[in-house]
Amino acid sequence: MKKALILSLSFYTCIYPQFAHALTALPKSPEIPKDNPQSVEKINLGKTLYFDPRLSKNGMLSCNSCHNLALGGDDNRAVSLSFKGEKGGRSSPTVWNSAFHTTQFWDGREKSLEAQAVGPIVNPVEMGMPDFPTVVERLKKIPGYVTMFDKVFGKNSITKENIGKALASFERTLVTPNSPFDQYMHGNKKALSPEAQRGMKLVQEVGCTVCHSGANFSGENKMGEGNFQKFPVYPDNDYVKKYNLMVDTGRFTVTNVEDDKHIWRVPTWRNIALTAPYFHNGSVKTLDEAVRVMAKAQLNVDLKENQVKDIVAFLTSTTGTFPKIEIPRLPPTLGETVVDED
Amino acid sequence: MKKALILSLSFYTCIYPQFAHALTALPKSPEIPKDNPQSVEKINLGKTLYFDPRLSKNGMLSCNSCHNLALGGDDNRAVSLSFKGEKGGRSSPTVWNSAFHTTQFWDGREKSLEAQAVGPIVNPVEMGMPDFPTVVERLKKIPGYVTMFDKVFGKNSITKENIGKALASFERTLVTPNSPFDQYMHGNKKALSPEAQRGMKLVQEVGCTVCHSGANFSGENKMGEGNFQKFPVYPDNDYVKKYNLMVDTGRFTVTNVEDDKHIWRVPTWRNIALTAPYFHNGSVKTLDEAVRVMAKAQLNVDLKENQVKDIVAFLTSTTGTFPKIEIPRLPPTLGETVVDED
Repeated sequence: MKKALILSLSFYTCIYPQFAHALTALPKSPEIPKDNPQSVEKINLGKTLYFDPRLSKNGMLSCNSCHNLALGGDDNRAVSLSFKGEKGGRSSPTVWNSAFHTTQFWDGREKSLEAQAVGPIVNPVEMGMPDFPTVVERLKKIPGYVTMFDKVFGKNSITKENIGKALASFERTLVTPNSPFDQYMHGNKKALSPEAQRGMKLVQEVGCTVCHSGANFSGENKMGEGNFQKFPVYPDNDYVKKYNLMVDTGRFTVTNVEDDKHIWRVPTWRNIALTAPYFHNGSVKTLDEAVRVMAKAQLNVDLKENQVKDIVAFLTSTTGTFPKIEIPRLPPTLGETVVDED
Repeated sequence: MKKALILSLSFYTCIYPQFAHALTALPKSPEIPKDNPQSVEKINLGKTLYFDPRLSKNGMLSCNSCHNLALGGDDNRAVSLSFKGEKGGRSSPTVWNSAFHTTQFWDGREKSLEAQAVGPIVNPVEMGMPDFPTVVERLKKIPGYVTMFDKVFGKNSITKENIGKALASFERTLVTPNSPFDQYMHGNKKALSPEAQRGMKLVQEVGCTVCHSGANFSGENKMGEGNFQKFPVYPDNDYVKKYNLMVDTGRFTVTNVEDDKHIWRVPTWRNIALTAPYFHNGSVKTLDEAVRVMAKAQLNVDLKENQVKDIVAFLTSTTGTFPKIEIPRLPPTLGETVVDED
């Protein structure tokens, strides 16, 4: 994931072996939920929906607009613009390896990719469809989708739930294995530069990996449980003020529970060098600065510049191999359009 | 071409054999200019640029946003929205087979794809970059582009001219052969339905093909010359009023020459069923209505409904086979972003 590096609550946990947290190579595929098994047809339907701007009110945005698969799975912007050009509330997180996250969205408000995937379609500052009946009605006007849903889910199956299932199935294929880090973990000790190896040691010694552990560097809880952390832990410093890191209260905006103020999902580190700018508000423009901010805001540590450099080298080594994706042919509406002009 | 069907100036020219205009199957590839030969590397560079939203000021739009290769090479909107959500002046024409057009843009103001391709990048109601020095400066910050331009054009070669050349090279591969119409022209008489065959006869008898001739149905002049036509020829009817077809003065907006008022490039018919809504202002929502409008506005002919249906069947038979295109990996700027937030 993009844009936030949540380090450890405590600088000292790493000293004790019982607090050691594992870093592991990326599995070939994520966990597949029993009620949404993968199939070639379902993945293809999900891919088609993912690239279809007709899921936005005026046809200006597809999922891929803000979670761009030609880039790091986001848009390299602080916040994305909506279908009509208005600023969104938080930075677009990467879609790559999102299937390894145990909860979805910055505030972890959805437990599954299925539930996440349908959210932006009806968000007024994202794709802007008024409601799901309208989405379903529009897709029913596109004969190719009727055929595709029929094949995958049975007759009369264009529903919010099945749109989410198809999109989630496609997203579970968006996995980037074989990064220098993964090669290193598989035994190729030359895959990481000395700098990156020092960085790898540092993130464990400093305590970053207490939270950023596991194959996705986003914690090791079970699917649906989520891995959460307070951010910033140390709010009284110049970084927190400069980058407005206390404005958004995170999970509190969902639960309204006082203890959830400034609680956030632990984001992934994978491909993080591709997803500047950083943090939930996209306020930090560079990865080196993001590392400095995290060390200070989470651990009250002032890293030395050579330490920052080494950690950045390690984080960059998580950039994986991206699967080849052919652009889908979107099913047409012959001689007419189904999108709104505004 | 999207959205306009410019029929004949004269209903009667088609009666005389010397005025007969040829319909022909699509060649395998368009004319390649001598000063911009195709190469695998150049086409790949052009494809990469085509999909790169960093060519827009705030990273929200790539060429593909408005000329979507997953669709009919446009966006199925009357007019596209700019990088910040403002409406553009005219409807996005299709990029498919644009290499067969002998002049570019609705008003034919550019003679080559090379010159056309760089226009939208610095158009304030399109991608909104302030000027080309800024575009070049931004691309120079992306190491992968420096390498790619070096290989294709030599050292220090990121220039407006070479950006146009690379984009044009890619666009010359965006060809859709093998439509039912093309199969028919190659001798498979079963490729067209009886309805489409009647439509094919009709467009010739009624006179549409006096302008919409040649392999691209956009006239037969030489590359760079352009095929132009007045539209509407008969302005005094309800269609012209209803669809505001006299507001935009077409080529006059470029040349300021009185005779160029309401003169337009003859657009292609290929894949026209995929590119609703129609005409330069996108005001006509359906293909059948576009056929009625053209017959009345250009020929003062009121087509019967069965004639409209047959012509639509024929026009739909020009939908071709689309090449498979793999999404490019856009070269990254590690740990930083190069797009503006606004």
